[in-house]
Amino acid sequence: MARLRLTVAYDGTHFCGWQLQAPGLGRTVQGCLEAALARLCGTPVRVHGAGRTDAGVHALAQTAHVDVPDERLSLPWQRALSALLPPDIAVTRVVPAASDFHARFAARGKTYAYTLWTRSDYILPWRRPYVWHVGRQGALDAAAMDAAARLLVGEHDFAAFQNAGSAVAGTVRLLTSVTSRPGASPEETVWRFTATGFLKQMVRNLMGALVAVGRGKLSPQALAELLAHGNRTRAPATAPASGLCLERVHYPDDPTDPNDQATACAGCLLESS
Amino acid sequence: MARLRLTVAYDGTHFCGWQLQAPGLGRTVQGCLEAALARLCGTPVRVHGAGRTDAGVHALAQTAHVDVPDERLSLPWQRALSALLPPDIAVTRVVPAASDFHARFAARGKTYAYTLWTRSDYILPWRRPYVWHVGRQGALDAAAMDAAARLLVGEHDFAAFQNAGSAVAGTVRLLTSVTSRPGASPEETVWRFTATGFLKQMVRNLMGALVAVGRGKLSPQALAELLAHGNRTRAPATAPASGLCLERVHYPDDPTDPNDQATACAGCLLESS
Repeated sequence: MARLRLTVAYDGTHFCGWQLQAPGLGRTVQGCLEAALARLCGTPVRVHGAGRTDAGVHALAQTAHVDVPDERLSLPWQRALSALLPPDIAVTRVVPAASDFHARFAARGKTYAYTLWTRSDYILPWRRPYVWHVGRQGALDAAAMDAAARLLVGEHDFAAFQNAGSAVAGTVRLLTSVTSRPGASPEETVWRFTATGFLKQMVRNLMGALVAVGRGKLSPQALAELLAHGNRTRAPATAPASGLCLERVHYPDDPTDPNDQATACAGCLLESS
Repeated sequence: MARLRLTVAYDGTHFCGWQLQAPGLGRTVQGCLEAALARLCGTPVRVHGAGRTDAGVHALAQTAHVDVPDERLSLPWQRALSALLPPDIAVTRVVPAASDFHARFAARGKTYAYTLWTRSDYILPWRRPYVWHVGRQGALDAAAMDAAARLLVGEHDFAAFQNAGSAVAGTVRLLTSVTSRPGASPEETVWRFTATGFLKQMVRNLMGALVAVGRGKLSPQALAELLAHGNRTRAPATAPASGLCLERVHYPDDPTDPNDQATACAGCLLESS
């Protein structure tokens, strides 16, 4: 068997998330990839993703690895997969990987982008599936949000920002950066969260809390207390899936980030980084 | 009756174009607007658009006028319409208009944007409905396309770029500018066409011809000869609707272009103009 590394972009709107479901329980990105790979390999192929994304969450550069029969290694994988996949999935890169490369365990971190639509009176139709329309409740206090974001950065127990249903042993994570920048249009702000690892719905819970701060419903200090207290039930509601995009998975051995090739994230366009 | 001027953005993907069809013949933008207006006014209301767009063509700032009963003038029109319209239409602005303002006859010109996706091996899923994926046939010759574009600018008989089915008396139009710029991501190029008026599918036919030039299938000189000859059957094929967006309608009395407020066109983002 030969190992391949795939970089995958998808529009999460019409998927029940990344992870394979039992038959009949919903269309998933992993399921579509495995179906296409099975056709090309003539045998079942398991896809190992760097992480799961929820229903409605998008990806610019999800990363996965697969093992294919040696005799299939010379297939034009990127084009062959693209020809079999539905239009809401694009395989943007396929490269041979070391036999011990593991998309999940080799990852040193991930970057998620979350896009807010801040114009109150309308939303442009084509941006609706890729943003959270927060504008109706008035202008957000950007300074308060920035102050709150600074309190979140670092190694913390993020239990207050983890939704129920996950089986992880610990809830301490290192959040290395939280930034906000203007988005593709003046009506949008893109928040980026980079961490060595994320808990279940952690980005959406952090974003929900930051917007609560922006709306004046929570002070930065109250957010810090929520973090210290570790009780999810006292934290603001989870932000909608639509605004979230898995932008990059970081690996230590990448000479340059492979995801640099693709810059037009569902929620986050036009960065020269 | 009181006259209102509406600015309307829509995602054309799931519309049979702008213009009202007979019942059962298809969902249209005009039809949706008239249904919402009738509910708000308690009486049928005719919507007069600045122009028609075809099925699949988008708009950032289509303009229309309507006459509503005087006693309804104080309605919060923008919000009231937004609440009744489907998610793929946004009314971005409603203002009172002079009783002799006519969205079509007062217009002094229009600007259309056409977006090309030029990366050959994949297309990001969320850009698919808003671009023409021309990349597969190799890099386009930008210099040849620019040269050809310069030959098109000016007052010409554009009969070679008009599709059948229209009933206009003359086919001479003044094309005031054709420009190309990088789009929202490195994989995109946005072509903008401004004219005092356009023939049926003229922009898509011009774009089809310019791409043929870019692919080396037609020289700029041959394009000039096509223009002079005026025979549609000898011209390259019409470009797909998906890449096209009605970006602005120009009116002489606008102190500033009302469409400047909305800058995130389906195909054409981030211009500071």
